[in-house]
Order: sequence, then C-alpha cells, then structure tokens
Amino acid sequence: MQLNETHNPQLRSWVSSANTGKTDFPIQNLPFAIFRRAGSSETFRGGVAIGDQVLDLAQVADQALMSGLAQAALVAAAKPQLNEFMGMGRDAWSALREALSLALREGSPFVNELTSALIAQSEVEFDLPCQIGDYTDFYTSIHHATAVGSLFRPDNPLLPNYKWVPIGYHGRSSSIGVSGQSFRRPMGQTKAPDASEPSFGPCKRLDYELEMGIYIGRGNDFGEAVTIDNSDEHIFGMCLFNDWSARDIQAWEYQPLGPFLAKNFASTVSPWIVTMEALAPFRRPWHRDEADPQPLAYLDSALTREQGALDIALEVLIETEQMREQGELHSLARSNFIHSYWTVSQMVTHHTVNGCNMRPGDLLGSGTQSGPEQEEAGSILELTKGGKEPLSLANGEQRTFLEDGDAIILRGFCEAEGSARIGFGEVWSKVLPALNKK
Amino acid sequence: MQLNETHNPQLRSWVSSANTGKTDFPIQNLPFAIFRRAGSSETFRGGVAIGDQVLDLAQVADQALMSGLAQAALVAAAKPQLNEFMGMGRDAWSALREALSLALREGSPFVNELTSALIAQSEVEFDLPCQIGDYTDFYTSIHHATAVGSLFRPDNPLLPNYKWVPIGYHGRSSSIGVSGQSFRRPMGQTKAPDASEPSFGPCKRLDYELEMGIYIGRGNDFGEAVTIDNSDEHIFGMCLFNDWSARDIQAWEYQPLGPFLAKNFASTVSPWIVTMEALAPFRRPWHRDEADPQPLAYLDSALTREQGALDIALEVLIETEQMREQGELHSLARSNFIHSYWTVSQMVTHHTVNGCNMRPGDLLGSGTQSGPEQEEAGSILELTKGGKEPLSLANGEQRTFLEDGDAIILRGFCEAEGSARIGFGEVWSKVLPALNKK
Repeated sequence: MQLNETHNPQLRSWVSSANTGKTDFPIQNLPFAIFRRAGSSETFRGGVAIGDQVLDLAQVADQALMSGLAQAALVAAAKPQLNEFMGMGRDAWSALREALSLALREGSPFVNELTSALIAQSEVEFDLPCQIGDYTDFYTSIHHATAVGSLFRPDNPLLPNYKWVPIGYHGRSSSIGVSGQSFRRPMGQTKAPDASEPSFGPCKRLDYELEMGIYIGRGNDFGEAVTIDNSDEHIFGMCLFNDWSARDIQAWEYQPLGPFLAKNFASTVSPWIVTMEALAPFRRPWHRDEADPQPLAYLDSALTREQGALDIALEVLIETEQMREQGELHSLARSNFIHSYWTVSQMVTHHTVNGCNMRPGDLLGSGTQSGPEQEEAGSILELTKGGKEPLSLANGEQRTFLEDGDAIILRGFCEAEGSARIGFGEVWSKVLPALNKK
Repeated sequence: MQLNETHNPQLRSWVSSANTGKTDFPIQNLPFAIFRRAGSSETFRGGVAIGDQVLDLAQVADQALMSGLAQAALVAAAKPQLNEFMGMGRDAWSALREALSLALREGSPFVNELTSALIAQSEVEFDLPCQIGDYTDFYTSIHHATAVGSLFRPDNPLLPNYKWVPIGYHGRSSSIGVSGQSFRRPMGQTKAPDASEPSFGPCKRLDYELEMGIYIGRGNDFGEAVTIDNSDEHIFGMCLFNDWSARDIQAWEYQPLGPFLAKNFASTVSPWIVTMEALAPFRRPWHRDEADPQPLAYLDSALTREQGALDIALEVLIETEQMREQGELHSLARSNFIHSYWTVSQMVTHHTVNGCNMRPGDLLGSGTQSGPEQEEAGSILELTKGGKEPLSLANGEQRTFLEDGDAIILRGFCEAEGSARIGFGEVWSKVLPALNKK
C-alpha cells in the first residue's frame, strides 16, 4: 500500500488538539465512527476523529463542500451505519480521506464551515459503526494458541493444523456492543475435573481477550474467492476488540464443535475504525521462520512478504471498582499485533477460498494477541497460568479471574520513525453481577 | 400448546387443491414464505401456501378485510421480510392464523376478494423468508453424533458432555440460500491421514446434512435468558434445512475451534416456514432414558416432558444429472425429528441461558437428524460408513460422496390419527463444479 500526502508527518490541522504529538487522532489518522450527542435522541451518523473533536459528517455532507467520488463517499459515510461506505471500495475510501485531510489541514478554505461541524468527543456517545452481518474469530497468535492449548490439552497444546490453516470459527454478532458495554456475568454449565456431574451457576473463570477487529470493506460474491493480492480492496479498517470469554464454560462445552456459550454472551469493539490506508506507514515485512512450514500458494505472495505484518502496540488495563473510586487503572499486559502468525490478508483470503461470501461490515477478530513473553499475554488465563498464580494489582488487590465490577480497557497505537503517531482510542467494558445466582 | 379450531381435520378450503388429503398445504397448515412471480422484478412479499397456490398477503393486506391484531400482523407478514411479523409474538401469529383459516375456509365471505390474490406455486420464485441475523447449528441427534464421532475419533466417539449440554456452534448466515440454490464445490486444504503435508484443491468428500431449521420469533433482551416454559413465545416456526458439509476439509480444520470452511460455503432452507401452532397436533411426550443423565433443571419442565418432542417424518433424495434427464429421483434415507436428543425449547433455552440475545428471524439448525437405524442416516458420510461402502442408486450409478451436478432434496411431513396431514414442501439444491480445479 502506497503512502501519499495524507501520511505526511509534517501535516498540521487547524484543529489544534490534533497537533499535540500525543493524541491518537492527528490529521494523519482520520478514523470513522458512528455517534450522536450523548443522551440526546439525535439520529446516529458518521463522524471522523480529529484531535479531541468529532467532525460530524452529516453536517459536512449537507454543505456539499466536496465533489465527485469524495462527496458520494461522504454522503455514504454520514449515514447511521457505515456499511454502504464500506462497500464502495478503496477508491472511494481514499477519495474521502484525501478530501478530509485537505479540509482539516492548516490553510484549508473550509475552516469556518467545518468549525460548526465539530463536537467535542467528551460530549458524544457511540453506536456500533455498522451492521455486522457475520462475525468470525481467528486464532492467529501462536503464543496464545500454545499457552491456552497447554491448559486445555496438556499433552497436545499446538495441534498439527495450526501452522498450515489460519484457524477460525464463527461467533455471535447479536451480542457485539460498542465501548461502554456492560454485561452480566454469564450463567452456564461447568464441570470440575474431579466432579462426576456438571453443575449450573455463574461463571467462575471470567476472562477478557485482547484482540484486533478487522472490518470487511467491499464484499465478494457467493462462490468467488478473494485472492491474496486483491484482498486490500476488501479490508476497510481495524479496531480494538475484547472477546469476553468464560473459561470454565468453554472447557466443558467446546468439544467437538468449538466454543459457543463461553463466548457469545458479549464482545466489545472500540468506536473508532482506523482505515487500512491510515495504517499503511506501519506495515512491515512478513516472514515465516524457516523451521516452520511455508504458507500454501493461495496464502502467499510477494506483497505479503514485503508488507503483510502490522506494527500495532497493544495494552490491556484493568479498572476494579476500588480503582474506579480512586481514578486509577492498572496495566495488565502489553503486546503487539506484529506477533500475529497470520496476516489480515491471509485471514480474508482463507475465509473466502471456499466461496464463502463476505458482506461490507462483516467483522473478523484476530484472536487473542499474546506476544512471546509471559508478560505479553492477552488474557488473564495466560497471565495467571490457568488461574494458578494470582496477579497482584498496584493497589494491593489480587485477581485470578475477573470479578463483578471489573472493567477492562484495551488500547492500541502505531509509532514509527518518520511517521506521525496514530492510535485506536480505547475500548472499555464492564462485568455486572450474574442475573440469577443459584 | 393448545389445539383450536384451525387444527380441526374436518376443515375444508374453497381452494380445492388444499383438500386432496395428499397436499403438504391443507388449510390446517398455512405456512409462510417470501415470494414473487418467477422471473419478474416485482417486490418480494409475504405469502401463505394453500394447496398448490400462494395467497399474496400484500394484496390481501391492501384490501383491509381483517381488523385489529390480525390486520396488523397481516401488514407485517406482507413485507419483503418476515422479521417484523416474527417479532410480534404468539398472539399476533395466532390472530393472523385464525383470520386466514376463516378467510380460506369453505363458506368464507371473502372468496371473491381472495381469489384474485392467489398465484400458482408453480409460477413463483422465493427469497429467504427473513434477514437471518445469526445462525446457530446444534448437534441434537445422538445417533449422528455417535456415528460421525466414531469416524473422526474412533477411540472417543461420543464425548462426555454430549448428554448434558445441547452442543451447538455458530455458523455463517451470509451463505444461507433458499431452495434452488446452486453452489460451487468448495476449494480448501485437506490432509490425507498418510500425507506428511496438507494440499489444496477441490473438496473430495462433499456431503449434505438432513436438518430441521428453527426460526426465532420474538427476541430476548441482551443479558436476559429465555426460560424453558417461556420459550414458545420465542419460537416462530420450522423449515427443512440442508447444511452442506465438506468432510475432508472438516477433518483437517475442525480442532480445536470447530467446523469453519467445511460448512460456511452454503446452507439451504426450504421456502416455507411451518409455524409452531400448525405443528401443535404433532407434539409428543419427551423423555430421557433412565440410564442417561436427566437434564439439568434449567432444561427441564413438566411441559417439556408432556409435549417436548415433535413427530416430523423426514426424507432425503438425490437427483443426479442422469436422473434429471430421466425425471427420476432416488430416496437415500428416511428419518424422523422425534429421535432428537434435545427439544427445540431446550435448544433456545440453553442458547440464551448465558444472556445471549436472539433476534427475530435468527435461525437454529437442529443438527443432522439421523435415526437409530443405519438406513435412517442423515448424511452420506454415515450411509457409506465414512466413504468405505459406496451406495448403489436405483439407476445403477454409485456414490461414495456427492458429484458435480448432484442435487439433494429434503422433504418432511407430519401425520397423526385424528389430524390433517401437513408438510414442509421441499428444499432442493445442487452442486456445481469447483471454480478453480488445481
């Protein structure tokens, strides 16, 4: 993916909060979300983050300041869901990005018109960015797969297919919520290893998963595969994604058809979608260790080798009830998406190679992005070695798994020499007590 | 579920083809579909089957012959998708059924008005009956689970959780099509047991699955479980469902997260949804063998014991290209939904017990409905004992798995002493050659 003037690190915006060097949302980012004024009954519409503000795309679209493909893309992006815009494809996404970059740049002729379309991010609430027709979760961190595998199958942690197949499974779209989601601790069947029968009650091993979400852009027709070199046309952008997990329910139910109730009670996305074009400066060469099998031809290409990896720094933080009162957070782990064993393009290509059709707005989870080191683990299951080694938090509290009232925050950002730092904002979501404690 | 006058086997319709005693669609059935005139550019709209005709609900709704809840339900059912009608709940479904039964009965005052709203079924084409937000596949035939388990895991066919947990997993909604669907043989990774590495190519072990589909009616709120005794409010009706499967892809990919590309290339529903109210006369007592674990409390109730099972006779037929030219079919197997280890209400209750929210129009697959006898197997994998014993078809052809050009037809009907016979029509779908034979 080529860099262009919108990536120029020298660009400054007339929105001064975009120029701090510390914001997640400088003019080089320009991520999309669906928003309205908090607590209002306004219609949700598309917005773009700039510094600490949201640019209201519906207001900008009404002013018809842009023209051609950029204006058409703007009108689509201003709707209450981004699906139509996502389905327009890369030329449209790029045209709107370029037009927004020009309009928000210092020296823009539209400062007066756009100033009235800015709303402080602190004053808005978000909706899901699009209708998610299907949600698929991958399993692309070999470090996570090995660590979790060794807990669920001590004699057989990493299965023989892992290094050949980008393992994935279908998840639940109805229970995906946007940052701010609170959900009840799930009830369910569990069976202790030494129990003769399962029992029913609230989950005792509640966990988060540090994932990236990937939104599909243009869809592919039923029966037509996306090739690895054409996959960029079909990938709109990325978000932070917390795929909540009930480990005790999972252990009892997951064989032979995979996780089900252990996962489908809640999953939470960050509001902002950072486009693949904004992420272009953070692409890195991708390679497979020589000791490992090389990918089959349909999953391999020169472009993948040159720039298949993405350098995205990730962090998980916890906010317990006690911390919330004190205004504190505790960092649980840092990792990076660059450790992913499979690339985003490989996920999309594999998913469609059998003719499976994707639709604009479909969501892929990357799987938990654990790094190679123990402190880079993307779940509490891994951090506590299966709940055996409790974590000590900075305020003196301890955790083996999550407790009622705990919130988990995921953050992510990209930094590189010669590029402006961009970020994903955050996703926050909180555990409520079970509805029916038996 | 109570019987009422709409179930009276003595009822006759002024549409004479409904009174043959052999049609799937007598006046006691009244199933819903979404249709338009074949080959036209008409708007799709709701229809009800009566004999060999479709009653065009959009035309009936415009005439405002009904009133109150029945008319409101009619207006919703006339739309291009049934989701709104499905979400109205049981009183609305019942009110419309009663009104349609009266209007289509001999002696109806509306014969003239409705005659103009009839279209021959042979002249229409169907769309999916609703937007399927999420699709979940269960695994409720213990005979199928044991037979398939013994092929995939000879030493461990039926896993310890099977008799406790209604096992299910999420499937793909985008690739679900309505009867008439043709799909390309999927490409994918497979690995022969004696091969050192996987290879990529067209599926060589393509299979069908004889399933029932269950459509959700009223949804449940995020975080709120559906109780077993309240589940009827949330279950709209049932259809025939062919969950196409690529057994060689499945064997290589399915551990540890379940089937993925082996299933998501195509699934096919019958056009007609038979409502739970129409199925009421075919409910039967449900019991669990004393030697087996009894269901946990949240999956058990007096109502389930009294009438949780459903007597639905099922049949799978094949139409090879050669048979198509001769106008022949070959029956592969007969089974019955009464063999299901878990009831429809148990599936819905289990699915939501962790707070997972269902939406109107969500689809549950029952899993392959194999009966206890070998000739009742609901997949060709079982009929050929894992592809080891080819089937001889009536016209002299043989099959181990499906070949290009083969179509599979599923049929289902209900018969009982003192009740009118009702049926599901059929679902037909066909295998096309792979796009890219490497």
